[in-house]
Parts: sequence; C-alpha cells; structure tokens
Amino acid sequence: MSNSGEPISTKDTEEVIMEATFRALSKHGYGDLRMRDIGEEMDLTRQVIHYHFDGKYDLLSSFLEYVIDQYEGSVEVDADADPRAELDARIDQCLFGPEFEEFGHWDRMKVYHELYVYAQNDPEHRDIFDAHYDRIQGSIVEVVEEGIEQGTFEPVDAERMGQFITDIIHAARGRRIALGHEDAPAETRRAIDEFVLDSLYADG
Amino acid sequence: MSNSGEPISTKDTEEVIMEATFRALSKHGYGDLRMRDIGEEMDLTRQVIHYHFDGKYDLLSSFLEYVIDQYEGSVEVDADADPRAELDARIDQCLFGPEFEEFGHWDRMKVYHELYVYAQNDPEHRDIFDAHYDRIQGSIVEVVEEGIEQGTFEPVDAERMGQFITDIIHAARGRRIALGHEDAPAETRRAIDEFVLDSLYADG
Repeated sequence: MSNSGEPISTKDTEEVIMEATFRALSKHGYGDLRMRDIGEEMDLTRQVIHYHFDGKYDLLSSFLEYVIDQYEGSVEVDADADPRAELDARIDQCLFGPEFEEFGHWDRMKVYHELYVYAQNDPEHRDIFDAHYDRIQGSIVEVVEEGIEQGTFEPVDAERMGQFITDIIHAARGRRIALGHEDAPAETRRAIDEFVLDSLYADG
Repeated sequence: MSNSGEPISTKDTEEVIMEATFRALSKHGYGDLRMRDIGEEMDLTRQVIHYHFDGKYDLLSSFLEYVIDQYEGSVEVDADADPRAELDARIDQCLFGPEFEEFGHWDRMKVYHELYVYAQNDPEHRDIFDAHYDRIQGSIVEVVEEGIEQGTFEPVDAERMGQFITDIIHAARGRRIALGHEDAPAETRRAIDEFVLDSLYADG
C-alpha cells in the first residue's frame, strides 16, 4: 500500500502496475506468470490490478502496448538531420536502444522477443506486433524515400529496404538475447554499413 | 501398442517418439507439454519413453537435436555447383525449406523458433542452437570464401557476410511464423538479391 496519503492518478497507477509486471516477467517468465507475482512486485494492493484490468490476458495485452509505446517513443531523431544521418540514428536506436531509468533496453527486449514468438497463437497480440512492425518499417521507408528524392540515395525499392533493415535489426537483437551473442548488434551495424548502406548511397 | 509382432530397433523407436513429440508440441505448445501428451500421439506404450529418456527435459533436448539434424541433413547442394549457384541454393533451402513426409518445413520451424527463444534461460539448449548457428554460418562463409578465391565475389569479410545472411534468413522465417507474413521468405530472397548479392558479385 502507498503510504504517502496523496491520491494517485489512474495513469500513475497503471504505470506502477506495468513496471511491476516487468519485474514479475523478468523473474518468472511469460509461461509461468501469475497475477499474484505482479502483486508482489508493487506497493499497491493486488485489488488495484483487478480494478484496472480484466484478468491476466487483458493486463498482458496492455503491457505489450506499453513496452512498444516506450520503445517507439524513445526514438529521437534530429528534425534537421539529412536522410543519411537520420537513417543512421534510427538504425542505432533500434539496435542499441535508449537508456531507461529502471529496466534497460535488453530487459525490455527480452520480454518483447518472448511475447513475439507467442504471438503466433494469439490474434490480438499479433495485431499489436504487426502494427508496430509497420510503424518501424514505415519510419525507415520514409527516410529512404526522402534520400532517393534528394538524390543522395540510389533509387531502390524503399518498402523492401525498410523491411530488410527492420528484419535484420530484429534478428540481431534476437541472437543477442537467445544465444547470448553480446556483439550481435555491433556486428550487424557493421554489416549493414558494409553490405547494404554502402550501395544505397548514391556517392558510394 | 505395436501389433506387428516384429521387434523394433532402438533407432526406430526413438524416431517414433520424436515424431510423436512433434505432434504433441504442435497441439500443446512447449510451455504446456506433458509426457502423457507425447504418449497419446504414438502406438507404443508410454513406458517406452521413460526407458529411452531421462525425463521431459532430456527428451526435449534430444528432440531439438533431432529437428536440427533433419534440417541440416536436408540441405542438398550439387558438388559441382559454382559458388554463386551454391550460395543461391543454400539461401533457398534455409528460407523455403525442404519437403518432409509428415510435418512440413514450417511445422518444424515453428517448434524450432519457439525453442530458440526459450534457449536464453537454458544453457544446454543454447549450446545446441549455438553450434547449429555456427554450422549454418560456416557453410555460407565457406562458399563466400571460395567465390572470393575464384575472383567471382568481391573481397568482403566472409565471416560477417555469413553471419548477415544467416541472421536475415532467421528473421524472415520468424516473421512468417510470429506475424503470419506468408510472403516474408520470398520478400527476403528478393531483398538479399537486390541489396546484398548484387554488390557481392564481382561482375555486378
């Protein structure tokens, strides 16, 4: 229970629950997670969870959206950046991730990648991941199209390029998490530079 | 129970158990799988499983090796193929997969990708996946090195190229499975051709 005596807003309460879910998932994994595990990770009573969410599934769907929102919201790109600098920044942020106060990028990505595989059996989660994939791909397509328009990029198929870069980033993160290849993101960054971007740049 | 009356070899019995495990995993998923689910998928008594395997974990480790052996054993490459043709064949086999009698490539890959994510918490499974990753990467590195030596490929970093192609194949399969993007392997094949191989070929 909170001892501060001050009322807590719904938004704050939901964030407390979301961060407790993070901690509980990190300890117990997705398959074995129980509502009580989440309750044990927060100072509010467990009833608060049931007030805000209609069961474990509803909570986990909200949690997935929370993780994705944080991830997407953390991508900061300088508005004045030219297409080449912006593309670089987007790739780096997706590969290496931003800093968070409590759980780091890799704690978050670990949960994300676990839920990603489960999405094959879960239409609602699949839709959430699908929309996220579209947005990440779309943000890369946009900057590639801009570069092509400005003549600094070769006239490639921008949709396909966006898909390719989104996929390879996902694979590098997945390999770091599943196989423990700590260097996977850095290796992939070099490979993207040498094998893909080098031929994308019109002056390359 | 088998009614044929003929004795069954250890190798055959283990294959019967492995294929039963496939069916059980397809129905129940990894998280919820029980030994009895496997027993229900075969004509032999469940005691046979306990005779051959020391519990569920031992069985699933053997199963993972079985899936990987089948997958690697199925990659057929013409011994006389030039590096370009061999690289093409290897990429296609990994992306689109070989044909199997009962479960298809995607049924097998679905199980493979699910176990891959779990490997983060499982040193033994991680080692099995790691060794498999090395072999797939190694087979691509070898053909890239051959092409460089023959002068038909540009002098790229072959290790990095092998890693890059292995990763992008994994991502395409994962996207098809998790998000249901049926075209992911074909799209990725085109992207590899346009964005990577085109600049790998010395005459490109």
